[in-house]
Amino acid sequence: MTKDWGLKDLLGLERLSAANIEAVLDAAASFKSSPRPDALSGRTVAFLFSEASTRTRSSFEAAALRLGAEVLSFSAAGSSLSKGETMLDTMLNLQAVGVTHFVVRHERSGVLEDLAPRLSACVINAGDGWHEHPTQALLDLLTLRERWGGFKGRKVVILGDIRHSRVARSNLFALKKLGAKVVFCGPTPLVPDDFAALGATVEHDVEKALKGADAVNVLRLQLERMEQGFVASLSDYALAYQLTPARAALMRNDALVLHPGPMNRGVEIDSEVADGSRSVILEQVANGVFVRMAALSLCDLGRGGPRG
Amino acid sequence: MTKDWGLKDLLGLERLSAANIEAVLDAAASFKSSPRPDALSGRTVAFLFSEASTRTRSSFEAAALRLGAEVLSFSAAGSSLSKGETMLDTMLNLQAVGVTHFVVRHERSGVLEDLAPRLSACVINAGDGWHEHPTQALLDLLTLRERWGGFKGRKVVILGDIRHSRVARSNLFALKKLGAKVVFCGPTPLVPDDFAALGATVEHDVEKALKGADAVNVLRLQLERMEQGFVASLSDYALAYQLTPARAALMRNDALVLHPGPMNRGVEIDSEVADGSRSVILEQVANGVFVRMAALSLCDLGRGGPRG
Amino acid sequence: MTKDWGLKDLLGLERLSAANIEAVLDAAASFKSSPRPDALSGRTVAFLFSEASTRTRSSFEAAALRLGAEVLSFSAAGSSLSKGETMLDTMLNLQAVGVTHFVVRHERSGVLEDLAPRLSACVINAGDGWHEHPTQALLDLLTLRERWGGFKGRKVVILGDIRHSRVARSNLFALKKLGAKVVFCGPTPLVPDDFAALGATVEHDVEKALKGADAVNVLRLQLERMEQGFVASLSDYALAYQLTPARAALMRNDALVLHPGPMNRGVEIDSEVADGSRSVILEQVANGVFVRMAALSLCDLGRGGPRG
Repeated sequence: MTKDWGLKDLLGLERLSAANIEAVLDAAASFKSSPRPDALSGRTVAFLFSEASTRTRSSFEAAALRLGAEVLSFSAAGSSLSKGETMLDTMLNLQAVGVTHFVVRHERSGVLEDLAPRLSACVINAGDGWHEHPTQALLDLLTLRERWGGFKGRKVVILGDIRHSRVARSNLFALKKLGAKVVFCGPTPLVPDDFAALGATVEHDVEKALKGADAVNVLRLQLERMEQGFVASLSDYALAYQLTPARAALMRNDALVLHPGPMNRGVEIDSEVADGSRSVILEQVANGVFVRMAALSLCDLGRGGPRG
Repeated sequence: MTKDWGLKDLLGLERLSAANIEAVLDAAASFKSSPRPDALSGRTVAFLFSEASTRTRSSFEAAALRLGAEVLSFSAAGSSLSKGETMLDTMLNLQAVGVTHFVVRHERSGVLEDLAPRLSACVINAGDGWHEHPTQALLDLLTLRERWGGFKGRKVVILGDIRHSRVARSNLFALKKLGAKVVFCGPTPLVPDDFAALGATVEHDVEKALKGADAVNVLRLQLERMEQGFVASLSDYALAYQLTPARAALMRNDALVLHPGPMNRGVEIDSEVADGSRSVILEQVANGVFVRMAALSLCDLGRGGPRG
Repeated sequence: MTKDWGLKDLLGLERLSAANIEAVLDAAASFKSSPRPDALSGRTVAFLFSEASTRTRSSFEAAALRLGAEVLSFSAAGSSLSKGETMLDTMLNLQAVGVTHFVVRHERSGVLEDLAPRLSACVINAGDGWHEHPTQALLDLLTLRERWGGFKGRKVVILGDIRHSRVARSNLFALKKLGAKVVFCGPTPLVPDDFAALGATVEHDVEKALKGADAVNVLRLQLERMEQGFVASLSDYALAYQLTPARAALMRNDALVLHPGPMNRGVEIDSEVADGSRSVILEQVANGVFVRMAALSLCDLGRGGPRG
């Protein structure tokens, strides 16, 4: 399982190889078929979350507990982060307490790049600013791979607020490496044309984008984008870009609908599509736990030695 | 243990049969005499609490841990609930993560009625608005039953702010089904005469109400009731309705004093009574853990199948 | 291990004997060499923290988990403390739920003195106002004892805001009992001359204080001290009292640098010193877990009986 991994951190997918990515998906699939309740026995996981999160945090926590790790009920709000201590000192301290795995969500992009190499503990990015959210993309990929077998020649549309989406970026990096074609779709303010430089096709017409697609990943429209002037109104956005049954019908017959959640029903996605037969949204969530089990345990192997 | 249960949810006591209620009390008594540390092994409990709680939450958490379940350290404040996601989607997501039991406190009455049937996981009401708080009433009942053996012919006074009390409602429903007589007592604004329609006797004179009673359940007076105009002042309320030693002496010699907590000493209850020999207030708390163990495990049986 | 202990609470070091203190250090050293993962199996630890804390709370939590205890994810913010209930009632209730160990941080000095004797559960002070922080001092002592063997004749400088420091007080009490000499150093507003009455030498000149010292314990300068008028500015304080490499060089060659954290780098301590070869700051943190394991388990023995 480890021959294509060997890393102690999972910071993003941009710099990983296709083999690295396949290694996580394989490990996740393996956890799905055979539980290993003591795989991380004796390890301690700490959460550093500077932004609210239900699903990512509970998913990582369930993953850690199912592998027998201990989870510190650390809350960023009641933390030293507000007392002027550097984030590195906070992490070094928690590492000295026995933390072997940090799961970190941070509002600043790329903040973990400098921190991770200075720690012996594993660092797993659970979303950093607009940069990456690697485990979210990996669970999307696991869900698609289970249905498709592979990614070669597949067309995946990512629909919505690409500009502010770490999910879009992580998905793009991974899908490209695995041979899929990615289309970014949304209004120009949210999908600038120069995002094509990342390797996606940019298409502002939602009908054109969806035509013949194998899957669409619908992104949440943050409600504050309206105040910030990126969209005229939620209704305007819904009119032009909501994934309605009619638009979903433009895709291939067996095309899949993904959403990283939380959904704004009636804004970016119609309830009939969200709850319809093409939707794999709850499969994504269930797969998320296995992907996080894989990330925690592969990084633990990359860390080396039995304890931190 | 299960022949009189068979439900996956515990939303309230109003619609349960006497046999259902006895089934929970029997299960609680059974846990009290023989621990079963693996009864809920492999299950995952999530707390959705939109209102603060010390005792109910810690009691449920202790119950879950003693049965070997995992508890997610989910906090409603840092949740998707604030991001516009529906509560059903949040719960479906957590269910997909592996949650098998939801313990929910919500400020809206009856909010769980629509949600529970759409979930395969168990839903246990830990207090919804002014509606019901079934496990609180069940722990009151267990405490009384341990002393009395049964409820037939017993007179129980519920004293205080009945209008806003889910505890009073759940107690009334259950005590009536089990054959006790219930008297609601308090000032008219807090105990409207038409509450008699629920099946209790309404009595505004505290001395008359307590005379010959077998037990009194003293409700907390929420301090904000003064600002809302329901009472003239805390001192006026205490003068007219506080359970003083003299008033407690009007009950039967072996009468019991209950309080769901947290107590406002010197407001609704005098410290001499709260800490006196008739008080079973800390017994209630201890019994609460066993009642919650019973609720979690009976609902788990009602859910069917070993995992969610 | 218990012959010099026999207490159920750890409220402070002022009233402990040297033998008591050595008993904790011995127990901590013993946990360090031989883990006892079931030592507190069946016990339940609750945290009552009215002030934010990362390191103390996570350290106690890691200690409790490594001994097999259950930890309630209780948060003081969502507690009954805000509903007018007395702290004693809150603790009695949690004790009735099954809590065997309270770890308490409180902004009021000495608040636990009255509460602890009324509870059968253990009470461990995790910092009360400006009074004591016994486990912090004990981890400082363990770190020094590992390097020195003993304390007789050693000179320890405590540098900084002594006036508001429970860490300084707990260190002073313990170091004196074990035979070390303690120097309090800092500006007069933060180190009043009459603090000499506690048994320390007061020295306002940092160079004189450090000369020939065996160790310096550098205290955090709370940033609000400037607004409160205790220091002219952070820069002024740093100029006069920061532990710089030049000042650190005035100590003995093998002198040690301690800091209870969180550090304000560039204010009370220079990064070169904090990260230098004399610094034992992360050793302190690691030792903290073992000291807390010792405190939890010795108090549990002092509590008597297998369960609360």
